[in-house]
Amino acid sequence: MNKKLTLAFAALLAPVLMLAQPNGGGRRMVQVSSPVVNADNTVTFNYRNDSAKDVKVNVQFAGTHDMAKNSDGIWTVTLGPAAPDMYPYCFIVDGINVMDPLNPDWFPNETFKNSILDMRADGNLLHSVRDVPHGSVDYVNYKSSTLGVYGNAIVYTPAGYDENKDKRYPVFYLISGTTDTEEVYFKVGRVNFILDNLIAEGKAREMIVVLPYGNPSKYFPAGTRMPVRGDAFSTDLLNDLMPFVEANYRTINDRDHRAIGGFSRGGNQGLAFGLTHLDKFSYLCSYSSFTSMTLPGVYDDADKLNSQLHLFWLGVGTDDFLYGNAKEYMDFLDSKGINNVKEFTTDKFGHTWMNAKFFLGKTLPLLFQ
Amino acid sequence: MNKKLTLAFAALLAPVLMLAQPNGGGRRMVQVSSPVVNADNTVTFNYRNDSAKDVKVNVQFAGTHDMAKNSDGIWTVTLGPAAPDMYPYCFIVDGINVMDPLNPDWFPNETFKNSILDMRADGNLLHSVRDVPHGSVDYVNYKSSTLGVYGNAIVYTPAGYDENKDKRYPVFYLISGTTDTEEVYFKVGRVNFILDNLIAEGKAREMIVVLPYGNPSKYFPAGTRMPVRGDAFSTDLLNDLMPFVEANYRTINDRDHRAIGGFSRGGNQGLAFGLTHLDKFSYLCSYSSFTSMTLPGVYDDADKLNSQLHLFWLGVGTDDFLYGNAKEYMDFLDSKGINNVKEFTTDKFGHTWMNAKFFLGKTLPLLFQ
Repeated sequence: MNKKLTLAFAALLAPVLMLAQPNGGGRRMVQVSSPVVNADNTVTFNYRNDSAKDVKVNVQFAGTHDMAKNSDGIWTVTLGPAAPDMYPYCFIVDGINVMDPLNPDWFPNETFKNSILDMRADGNLLHSVRDVPHGSVDYVNYKSSTLGVYGNAIVYTPAGYDENKDKRYPVFYLISGTTDTEEVYFKVGRVNFILDNLIAEGKAREMIVVLPYGNPSKYFPAGTRMPVRGDAFSTDLLNDLMPFVEANYRTINDRDHRAIGGFSRGGNQGLAFGLTHLDKFSYLCSYSSFTSMTLPGVYDDADKLNSQLHLFWLGVGTDDFLYGNAKEYMDFLDSKGINNVKEFTTDKFGHTWMNAKFFLGKTLPLLFQ
Repeated sequence: MNKKLTLAFAALLAPVLMLAQPNGGGRRMVQVSSPVVNADNTVTFNYRNDSAKDVKVNVQFAGTHDMAKNSDGIWTVTLGPAAPDMYPYCFIVDGINVMDPLNPDWFPNETFKNSILDMRADGNLLHSVRDVPHGSVDYVNYKSSTLGVYGNAIVYTPAGYDENKDKRYPVFYLISGTTDTEEVYFKVGRVNFILDNLIAEGKAREMIVVLPYGNPSKYFPAGTRMPVRGDAFSTDLLNDLMPFVEANYRTINDRDHRAIGGFSRGGNQGLAFGLTHLDKFSYLCSYSSFTSMTLPGVYDDADKLNSQLHLFWLGVGTDDFLYGNAKEYMDFLDSKGINNVKEFTTDKFGHTWMNAKFFLGKTLPLLFQ
């Protein structure tokens, strides 16, 4: 093969080297990786940009820090040590936020673009990919008569689902937060791996988990109106997504075998829908949510509510900007005599997905027991 | 609820407005969306950055163009009209490539970070989400004895797979290109929607499609060595991924019901593996691939090869930087008397995923017929 093609193919095979130094010119090739987790759980971030004047990194375990340009022309900084976990981060290059060009892992989101630092910790984390039976994560498209489009959702089925063809499972509807897509509880929340691990340890029941997309307006181009009035999310969930799930997966279709919850806005959506559809749900989980005390009629009969709910779980970080509201809501429920389980975190970074994963680990073992 | 919380919750609900003007200060709120596909198939890109001095957009249908700052402080440009399709693009802000903060769709990749412009064209495209039965796309983790880790793969099963529990299906192993992840043939190649549409039209057989990850070295931190010598991808595919697929999906496990192929490096991997494992495969597809004439012994017996291969399909764009190599390979096969089907595109943007989707539309109907 001729030299031109050899070089062309070499280009195909060496993207890291090529892309890592867009302005590298004749400089000797230096392979950089980023992020690098060091043995002491410090983390080194590397970024090559020959023209930038100021480069910082913003990472959720440490905040914003300057990076320094080393003799190889690579902007670098080592931060931490950090508690092994998954942390969103981005570089701030001359004031502009950019994802890490050397890291394929990102935080799915409607707006902000962050990479994900994944500290593996030798598989010892709640969400680690361990040597246990793994469930399947299905990306599905369901026809929404409410929205007039095909909606996106993700469905987790536990290991053994395909083999045990006569077995039916309880189902947990789990909703991400504002600006999150339906992917976040999978790619950042790692609900599949957390559940794989808990099931393998006998700590959680086998269940199906459904991840809806919390913001149906995004299915429509800017400026167009949705073909539905009021709460499009709830209407679609009730009339389209739930029937789709129950027609296509072996769910147990009664209130004793359905749970609903979510993170942030998703928790608000989950509680509002669950509390107003107690004929369908008996487990409610609120993770770092904004909560509402103004659902008409819902809180009037504490005895009835207590008899209907197998679990009313509320978790929030004491340093979460929604802590005040969450605590106010818990006090409100207590004052009404409405049973609820409270979980507070003090060192889990407030309104973050580190907390969201921690809360999953606390609640999944309580569902359908 | 108090005002502070009202504002905090408002912040949760208005990320586009907030994030669209990081330095907006007291300026009136202007809601911007991006990208906007106009009725004449021109596309308007919008980006708010009050401190940037120079903003360009690079989009695969038009190349790089300057954006101008309008009276609302929004950098904007309208390009095209473009042939409705999916196009990678990024903004170049003072020389730095960034994804579009207002677009949740991106191009999964190990290195470059591009957003994806998705021109819907009212569902009239080969890869459109149409009102037809939709298959399921499963993200799976398989234990790789070759790699000593759990590998990532994506498996498409056609509509009806779960209902027809005794039915078995042929399987197509489809490999993405250099720096692509296993997600690209799903999120950019749209093989699931293309196949949903072709099956619904009776133009393609129902089949299972498996998307391996073409670059196993990425499972290992920089500087660490893989626990396997030689071609880790092929060894893992043969000893780990294929057995996993055949144990967990209802595949027809003979050479007449297996196809393999891919885009760019993935096509090279697919041909090399298929041609050296003709006991397992009888359909080969090369999409914009770098191809090799030096596989030992493979091309010596044209009659035998012709009798074993139901399809040997090769597609490339005449403006692809690999066209010369691909044409050279086709001529080589012809000179050896080895049957092959050739497809050339002249207006599909060379070495791109617009071509990759087009080639899928040409080849999927030819598999397993």
